[in-house]
Amino acid sequence: MKQYLKLDEWSIIEEGFDSHSHEISESIFSIGNGYMGQRANFEEQYSGTSLQGSYMAGVYYPDKTRVGWWKNGYPEYFAKVLNSTNWIGIDVDIDGTPLDLSQCIVKDFVRELNMKEGVLSRSFTAVLEDGRELKVTSVRFVSIVRHEIGAIRYSITPMNFTGTITLTPYLDGDVKNKDSNYDEKFWLEVFKEAGKGNAALTVKTKKLDFHVTSVMTYEVSKNGEKLELGAEQIEKEKYVGNVVHVQAGEGEEITIFKYVANVTSRDHGLGQLVDKAREVLDQAVQAGFGELEREQKAAWGDKWKESDIVIEGDVAAQQAIRFNIFQLNQTYSGEDDRLNIGPKGFTGEKYGGSTYWDTEAYCLPFYLSTADASISRNLLIYRYKHLEKAKENAKKLGFTKGALYPMVTMNGEECHNEWEITFEEIHRNGAIAYAIYNYVNYTGDTSYLAQYGLEVLAEISRFWEQRVNYAASKDKYVMLGVTGPNEYENNVNNNWYTNRIASWTMEYTLEVLKELEQNQPERYAELVSKLKLKDEETAKWQDIISKMYYPEDAERGIFLQQDGFLDKELLPVKDLDPSHLPLNQKWSWDRILRSVYIKQADVLQGLFFLGDRYDLETKKRNFDFYEPFTVHESSLSPCVHSILACELGYQEKAYEMYLRTARLDLDNYNNDTEDGCHTTSMAGTWMSVVHGFGGLKVKDGALHLNPFIPGHWSSFSFKVMFRGARFNVKVTDQEVVILNETDIPAVLNVGGQEYSIEGMGEVRASRSVEVTS
Amino acid sequence: MKQYLKLDEWSIIEEGFDSHSHEISESIFSIGNGYMGQRANFEEQYSGTSLQGSYMAGVYYPDKTRVGWWKNGYPEYFAKVLNSTNWIGIDVDIDGTPLDLSQCIVKDFVRELNMKEGVLSRSFTAVLEDGRELKVTSVRFVSIVRHEIGAIRYSITPMNFTGTITLTPYLDGDVKNKDSNYDEKFWLEVFKEAGKGNAALTVKTKKLDFHVTSVMTYEVSKNGEKLELGAEQIEKEKYVGNVVHVQAGEGEEITIFKYVANVTSRDHGLGQLVDKAREVLDQAVQAGFGELEREQKAAWGDKWKESDIVIEGDVAAQQAIRFNIFQLNQTYSGEDDRLNIGPKGFTGEKYGGSTYWDTEAYCLPFYLSTADASISRNLLIYRYKHLEKAKENAKKLGFTKGALYPMVTMNGEECHNEWEITFEEIHRNGAIAYAIYNYVNYTGDTSYLAQYGLEVLAEISRFWEQRVNYAASKDKYVMLGVTGPNEYENNVNNNWYTNRIASWTMEYTLEVLKELEQNQPERYAELVSKLKLKDEETAKWQDIISKMYYPEDAERGIFLQQDGFLDKELLPVKDLDPSHLPLNQKWSWDRILRSVYIKQADVLQGLFFLGDRYDLETKKRNFDFYEPFTVHESSLSPCVHSILACELGYQEKAYEMYLRTARLDLDNYNNDTEDGCHTTSMAGTWMSVVHGFGGLKVKDGALHLNPFIPGHWSSFSFKVMFRGARFNVKVTDQEVVILNETDIPAVLNVGGQEYSIEGMGEVRASRSVEVTS
Repeated sequence: MKQYLKLDEWSIIEEGFDSHSHEISESIFSIGNGYMGQRANFEEQYSGTSLQGSYMAGVYYPDKTRVGWWKNGYPEYFAKVLNSTNWIGIDVDIDGTPLDLSQCIVKDFVRELNMKEGVLSRSFTAVLEDGRELKVTSVRFVSIVRHEIGAIRYSITPMNFTGTITLTPYLDGDVKNKDSNYDEKFWLEVFKEAGKGNAALTVKTKKLDFHVTSVMTYEVSKNGEKLELGAEQIEKEKYVGNVVHVQAGEGEEITIFKYVANVTSRDHGLGQLVDKAREVLDQAVQAGFGELEREQKAAWGDKWKESDIVIEGDVAAQQAIRFNIFQLNQTYSGEDDRLNIGPKGFTGEKYGGSTYWDTEAYCLPFYLSTADASISRNLLIYRYKHLEKAKENAKKLGFTKGALYPMVTMNGEECHNEWEITFEEIHRNGAIAYAIYNYVNYTGDTSYLAQYGLEVLAEISRFWEQRVNYAASKDKYVMLGVTGPNEYENNVNNNWYTNRIASWTMEYTLEVLKELEQNQPERYAELVSKLKLKDEETAKWQDIISKMYYPEDAERGIFLQQDGFLDKELLPVKDLDPSHLPLNQKWSWDRILRSVYIKQADVLQGLFFLGDRYDLETKKRNFDFYEPFTVHESSLSPCVHSILACELGYQEKAYEMYLRTARLDLDNYNNDTEDGCHTTSMAGTWMSVVHGFGGLKVKDGALHLNPFIPGHWSSFSFKVMFRGARFNVKVTDQEVVILNETDIPAVLNVGGQEYSIEGMGEVRASRSVEVTS
Repeated sequence: MKQYLKLDEWSIIEEGFDSHSHEISESIFSIGNGYMGQRANFEEQYSGTSLQGSYMAGVYYPDKTRVGWWKNGYPEYFAKVLNSTNWIGIDVDIDGTPLDLSQCIVKDFVRELNMKEGVLSRSFTAVLEDGRELKVTSVRFVSIVRHEIGAIRYSITPMNFTGTITLTPYLDGDVKNKDSNYDEKFWLEVFKEAGKGNAALTVKTKKLDFHVTSVMTYEVSKNGEKLELGAEQIEKEKYVGNVVHVQAGEGEEITIFKYVANVTSRDHGLGQLVDKAREVLDQAVQAGFGELEREQKAAWGDKWKESDIVIEGDVAAQQAIRFNIFQLNQTYSGEDDRLNIGPKGFTGEKYGGSTYWDTEAYCLPFYLSTADASISRNLLIYRYKHLEKAKENAKKLGFTKGALYPMVTMNGEECHNEWEITFEEIHRNGAIAYAIYNYVNYTGDTSYLAQYGLEVLAEISRFWEQRVNYAASKDKYVMLGVTGPNEYENNVNNNWYTNRIASWTMEYTLEVLKELEQNQPERYAELVSKLKLKDEETAKWQDIISKMYYPEDAERGIFLQQDGFLDKELLPVKDLDPSHLPLNQKWSWDRILRSVYIKQADVLQGLFFLGDRYDLETKKRNFDFYEPFTVHESSLSPCVHSILACELGYQEKAYEMYLRTARLDLDNYNNDTEDGCHTTSMAGTWMSVVHGFGGLKVKDGALHLNPFIPGHWSSFSFKVMFRGARFNVKVTDQEVVILNETDIPAVLNVGGQEYSIEGMGEVRASRSVEVTS
């Protein structure tokens, strides 16, 4: 862990160039707009170590899967986020010497990600081998207003010489994925054309026939005056570019503006790709770089209005939380219900497939509170659209009905191939059901249930119905051979969380069915008929609910993570020789499995999700028992602990847990940020602040807050959108100030007390009564 | 399953050529001599589907392992039995038309494996496209007298034409393994020389530097008259050969005798390989084909004297049991303690590594009863030599002391990489300890314990000591996260068999220590010092023995295969829809795991190994409970069931179980014989007959027999070597006749009654009292 970034409230700033941290910076300074994105690679050639990565959302590749020992039911492929055409490239050459930061002395290097405005910039002075110096500044962004547009302003000023600067703006589709299983390239060339001052390239994937067209144009100016220049066209395999020579005197600033449109066959017909790309490119060029930049700034301003968190008295925390919010907003914008949130967003390739249960369990709450309900609804519709595939998946595993959603997916098909996860980590099905409940509970949008949700719930309930078996030995239904959220256990029996979320799913499904029958009898009849739902099935669900087995230890008053958990050696993490941590790097798998150590919240995940069904004492006993054994080696773990700790009044523990992920990538805590950022876990950090410190819950259709403030913060504030209104909640030592930023009045509960708040009104609640619930 | 082989008491015979079963025949008709062996590939070129395979015992390749998802502790490589120089090749060409059985009409094809004499032969008439007919006969063997020698007699007779026959005897080292993980070739050329009438080739492995030298010579005769012919020498990459042209008139028989010596750097210095090979080759050529054949026949006669089983009244059973004995004897001859018994012998490549627990659990009893004790002792010494590697392996997995033998190995290092097997199927350690007990109990050779055995026992006990943990919840020692012999369960807690064999190991180790202390105090002191054995350790073992947890169900009076076994759905195999079988082809892994179905004997394996510690009623209750859930999808399963069924008087069940493996490969029962034969499980079939039907046990230093005879057999007889004597035991409906074939007198127990048997004497025991123990 090396902290080399400067603290700043609104920007991520790197001062001085160190090639050893370049790949980490490439991840951290990534930019994206939900539609496309890329790592913070340099525009000019760079011969040092770099992970070149440019990604188009939803464009993936079914790479032939790699398996040691095949098991029936394994998927044939692993869907990979696809590294696609490098469109940022502008090679620079000074009288025959290429500008390459690994081949010259770099002075005054500053890289900045301005999160307020969504712009990446860089400036430095390069000293070439022969002593010539040039100053370079670049500004780049992918537009969140015009999703297919990226723009670059790149300026070079000779500081102590006069010479010819050769610029080669290009598009290069001859890229490959670092994690290609068999070292294959995934792209084929379809079309290329290098014109004068412009170029176009269409490439397609070897499988699935995704087409991506990039077109570029550029302008060159000297000291702000546009130049009319000849250009040499170059075409190579999957590569088009222009070569431009400019004479530059000492102190003269040569600037190239490069505009690119990237369009894909996901959105446009194959025959229209080039025309469409040229059309959106023309519009962008007409607007011009300045206007595009202004638009970008304004649009990011709007995003921040909806989602900003302000922390006073702790710049590191302020920077971190904004970084997390920024990454989430640039990864998923929610307009396209075919897209989802990849574990690394647009910052890297690792973990390939796009969608994990992270989305439902961790990301959904962020979008529920910081964006229009339609955005969250699209996340649910994504899974609704995959329902048929999930049913196929269940069939493939031998179930006669029901749906099992995949552990990792791009298009609804399973990609993962470890039996203990693929086949057994089935609690993911519960998270997908829970997300429906969470959405409806938060938004009040019950229409979703009748239109989409109930079908998903019923098919998941059918899966659980078959996945349990009746154990005569216990006169209970048991669930054998599962992996719970704590992946440091495999193939266990009666994982409490999985059993609980399974019966909860059935309970909720029955409840939704009943309400629908009462309120929309026609739609109810229609759905029952579509689902071919039989009374025996709902009766069976009822029977399972009433006879589900929940392992517990009566003496300790705790739920057991799984059968036999107490046979383990109960040595808390604090008593473990620290040289053994992290376990996943130091211990063999069997040792991890038979140990008591917990990777991420498991029983506690259930107490968090179903928090309104368990009293504080129960939560406390379980927290006190499990937390000391938890190693938090999943970045998704600390947030749940932080939120529960807040509820239990364990304020120090809550803050400690919050700190474990807040700056995970900025401080490269796990030594793996060079692979990309931990995008989905960033939502967990947001939850720690809003659900944890803010104590946000929704009960009976009303927003409840129960804030506390970490010791050395002077104040913090966050935004919450709720049923049309948007509140700014500011918490200080003394009080909670809630400002309604809309004209929709509401009733709120703060620290157990109800408040009415007018449109644009304000509520101030004293914090003199310290709230521990 | 297709039965295409002719029934015969002493031979395996295929009549008529069917290319679809050629690969199966290549496996079944394989020949070997413990030192080298090969599949029954054709000598002449063959363009049809074939698995070319020639293997040198102990010459292996550490192929880069293939893993889907890496886990700490996985091995870097998988040792592969190495397909090496094809030395049988003799290409045949008739006036420009190559002889290729896939390109002509094949008449009167007969392939025969004469097991009595250890010779593979083939005859057929080939009708070429233009109507020319030629008769071909070939005879081939690998000498069990001269381990490095192979010899071929190959004759061609033009039946309706006169022409030029071109013969190309060659050595081809440019071969590859079918199961190469990354499609690599593993050999490099070191030396080649094609002389007139002879050729030599040395190749070496790309890793580990194994060198294999093959030299060949040949003679050609016409109608029995040796010809003096010119020869064209050919050298290609890793290939040397001679081309010989012979004029043959209609009806004239042209015969080529090809002699080959194969020597390896395992036995000879690198600089001597070619000379050594030429030396042994010269000796063989001087002896001549006829003499080599006579030697072979005589040596196999001796083998059969020691190991034959005669079944009267059932040719299929007779053929099968001889096939199994033949395969075992040609796979492992026991002179070299660096060698072991690969799961496919010399018949194929699958399962790569050579040594599994099959050796100790299934093969050892065969060699104990049918060969000199030194052969079995060498099997034990093999593991003794790997003790340091087994200690390293335990360290690698985080144990501070003790030894964990690998699941699959060639040189003592672990090769397997499925965590549930590699790290968890640790009962293999118990089988290795048990084999020491079994050897000592059978042979009475206690010197092995002091010299080698105790060290192995102590290090295994140390492993168990650390692998259990004290569970305060039970006030017992438990063993978490294991895979028992039933591999259709993974990562279970308290597998009864593993717990039992673990505590048994500690018991036996303490017993051996005690005896050594009493009888050889000096050696005892020496070993205690070498092992740095502390009193605390033996005390701890004692504590674990007394407090080991054994899961059981008191109501049913059975041991539980593992914790929670009774929570499963207890549906017997017979009530399962047969279309679901075999489970390993029809069900996904998770479904198999959570089902009650048992792949192979698990609790019953323990009751078999430790049979003298459990009464018949206990065995019966457990057999009656577990057998109905057992699918026997391991070829190692039925034999244990057969033997226990015999003991319990379940004679029909015993015979049913015997039948499940007796003709496993001959009838291609599992549809996989083309990959090679199930060599190690053949020992299980032998055990079914001798330990099962024969009821052989050793108690208190004496041989006990308790035979029954399957209904439709008129008699069966088997050989048993025991402490220097050799008996022929013949069982008929009426009596058991035991003939002592040596002059060493003995006391035997038959059907519960003691008999003294003189040197060369006979004992007849009436079977009027039907024995059910």
